[in-house]
Amino acid sequence: MIVDVLERLHAELPDRINTDAATLESLRTDRSGVRTAAAPLALIEAESIEDVQAVCRLATATGTPLVTRGAGSGLAGAASAGAGELVLSTERMNRILEISPENQYCVVEPGILNGDLNRELATRGLWWPPDPASKDFSTVGGNIAMNAGGLLCAKYGVTREAVLALKVVLANGGLIEVGHRTVKGVTGYDLCALMIGSEGTLGVIVEATLKLRPAVTGVVPTIGAYFDSITAAAEASAAITAAGLQPAIQELLDANMLRAVTAHTGVDLASNGNAYLLVQTDGAAALDEAQRILALFDELGARATLTTDPEAAASLVDVRRQGFPALEAMGAFLVEDCAVPRSRLAEMFGHIERIAAKYDVFIACPAHAGDGNLHPTFVFDGSTDEVPDHVWDAASEIFETALALGGTLSGEHGIGLLKRRWLGDELGQRQLDLQREIKRVFDPLGILNPGKVFPE
Amino acid sequence: MIVDVLERLHAELPDRINTDAATLESLRTDRSGVRTAAAPLALIEAESIEDVQAVCRLATATGTPLVTRGAGSGLAGAASAGAGELVLSTERMNRILEISPENQYCVVEPGILNGDLNRELATRGLWWPPDPASKDFSTVGGNIAMNAGGLLCAKYGVTREAVLALKVVLANGGLIEVGHRTVKGVTGYDLCALMIGSEGTLGVIVEATLKLRPAVTGVVPTIGAYFDSITAAAEASAAITAAGLQPAIQELLDANMLRAVTAHTGVDLASNGNAYLLVQTDGAAALDEAQRILALFDELGARATLTTDPEAAASLVDVRRQGFPALEAMGAFLVEDCAVPRSRLAEMFGHIERIAAKYDVFIACPAHAGDGNLHPTFVFDGSTDEVPDHVWDAASEIFETALALGGTLSGEHGIGLLKRRWLGDELGQRQLDLQREIKRVFDPLGILNPGKVFPE
Repeated sequence: MIVDVLERLHAELPDRINTDAATLESLRTDRSGVRTAAAPLALIEAESIEDVQAVCRLATATGTPLVTRGAGSGLAGAASAGAGELVLSTERMNRILEISPENQYCVVEPGILNGDLNRELATRGLWWPPDPASKDFSTVGGNIAMNAGGLLCAKYGVTREAVLALKVVLANGGLIEVGHRTVKGVTGYDLCALMIGSEGTLGVIVEATLKLRPAVTGVVPTIGAYFDSITAAAEASAAITAAGLQPAIQELLDANMLRAVTAHTGVDLASNGNAYLLVQTDGAAALDEAQRILALFDELGARATLTTDPEAAASLVDVRRQGFPALEAMGAFLVEDCAVPRSRLAEMFGHIERIAAKYDVFIACPAHAGDGNLHPTFVFDGSTDEVPDHVWDAASEIFETALALGGTLSGEHGIGLLKRRWLGDELGQRQLDLQREIKRVFDPLGILNPGKVFPE
Repeated sequence: MIVDVLERLHAELPDRINTDAATLESLRTDRSGVRTAAAPLALIEAESIEDVQAVCRLATATGTPLVTRGAGSGLAGAASAGAGELVLSTERMNRILEISPENQYCVVEPGILNGDLNRELATRGLWWPPDPASKDFSTVGGNIAMNAGGLLCAKYGVTREAVLALKVVLANGGLIEVGHRTVKGVTGYDLCALMIGSEGTLGVIVEATLKLRPAVTGVVPTIGAYFDSITAAAEASAAITAAGLQPAIQELLDANMLRAVTAHTGVDLASNGNAYLLVQTDGAAALDEAQRILALFDELGARATLTTDPEAAASLVDVRRQGFPALEAMGAFLVEDCAVPRSRLAEMFGHIERIAAKYDVFIACPAHAGDGNLHPTFVFDGSTDEVPDHVWDAASEIFETALALGGTLSGEHGIGLLKRRWLGDELGQRQLDLQREIKRVFDPLGILNPGKVFPE
């Protein structure tokens, strides 16, 4: 059967197939570091919808598992491929097919990088808002398959809100068009939303109509504020929302992040306080909003700076930007991802501190505070290939705590291989069963990204 | 079997069941006027989740069809109930369970009216954006079940963007919680989005966590502009979007609407022009945006007025508000609903004029121009119970034309009974089959709102 599928691929798509050993080895993981037991069978670099259809038809005919992959920048192992699997790359399908300023949409192939698309859109005064930290090296198709988040979601929404329509190739090679090219559309079930965040388990996204916004213009005031405690900083963030103010970004760093950045850069930030909150506002009311936020921070006892000077702003932003490089310099690390309602953020930070002590593990935690989205980051000796058991135990308790506070297992990274064992805890058995049945509707043979998302 | 289900309902929920003949007769239709052949069996007025579960269990046990109904304000016949069916009303489940300014969400029962909820939210400086024209007499549960639109969608999104999480009772009485209380959440398939707009065919929405915004404050400038032709007005609307401006509302009236309002009110609006475009801007840049739009209208040859005076604004808004009462005074009427990409709006109006002439039917057409969402409204002799064949033929050609222009059968009213025969034209057989299979996953016995949405 394996010989058969490779032979047939070589016959049908000779220019697209790649079986180079080093390449296949690299496909065992993504940026999560979660690695499968062995390398996949072959990489197929599709160049057209017809190529994708041909691959799906062959996979169905031979019962061969198929893992769709964009840039491999995921953080949940959703694109990690293993023994006996084909990897279908959409990276070569990277064209912009249409940009319509009148309709505020564009039509693109899935392999285009988010950053490349936005650079092109910017020349026309347009913008596609999803902004995962990976945007310069992640594909739009991957952003959609994972329903990517980022820094701007509280104000500008997640990826789901920025996609109007999709063309999707089904497991059997059939092509469907889901969603609408119009702002509104209510014709049957919203299969476009169902496809967004489905992590390659329901079909292969081969074209996307993206909802655009006018590019944000004008001054972007930046505030950097140090607080005595993470609780005070988290409460300040919640107070911003409660006051009806809507910053573009609100990034929170805890004391361990500040210590790590201090150690890495040699600049003593840690003695400024035990938490740092970076805020940027944008739009017509940007300066007014920033001034109100500054006043609120002053009231709450923060040591805060507001600037509209680009250089001064860059140095305030740099505190956040240095965070992950600083942690990387400390050892192996695992970036986790959960979210809680904004009002529970302070409480969640308290639990993370407690859990770090309980399992004797170093956890530093940045958060997209406006979204209640935390990234507890574990630093440990060794390699990310082998995350120690006590780290997983601590992570597990963090996930359970997030759920207990009314939150979620994953704010933006997804489930993939990394978190499937906890999915049932969040969804409950009844919903998990429904989700599995939906999977079977789209993929009766179970060949699309098997073993991902659902617990085994 | 019928006796059995009624007996068991009387035994289990004696205070909730209503079999008054006039009441049952009224449940044969909604505001679409589409009437079923006979009255349903009984109305059950649920007061709690447990009530809904009990009804669903009984419906499953006895194989009795169940039609969930909010206020009956729908325009597609999605809540019209017929012979042998039970009607489950959620109108008594109308409590606000929680309002959280810090999290910008509220938790409500489905039967609360949109207008009642928003009046309560306004006292706390908060707002739930969905604004169907029916908002004062439609329920939040109904808004969600139909994914309601309204006037503000281009700027503030449709209902789907304003719902975080739902509690849903399944056909068999099981309860699931879908979605997240956080801004972000990517754990499995987005069943919350799947439920929104599913028209009562997948489950019964019994609780909703709604995403709120700060109430919009400040001046709301209003522009009323007359154009020589509907084409010029539609092009002016598209030019607003192309210029990166984002009004809160953009309402367009064609010449037949202006004639009807003139006849109805005695104020000669028709001689001002052949099309009217009403624009309102809001937010921090409202006045600046309005002035730029006015300049754009002047360039395009419109006769436009900009005002921030409430009384003068009311009279500009009144032109639009008088539209439907004016048509109602002319005879029986059928309000239809389709959408096209904004850039095709002028073209679509041309087709509607052509189709009206071809079928010799009077069509007046208001549009939510920013959404490309048109409401071709047919006026004819007789009653809405019996829409004449030539009106349906004209409507059918309008739907097909909207699809041919890259649009959709329904922008905001939904499919229900009224439009199911065209659904396959939009989705294609392959997607229609998938949607039917999803329906079977949730409702294997086919008892939830049977005969709605899907063509028979």
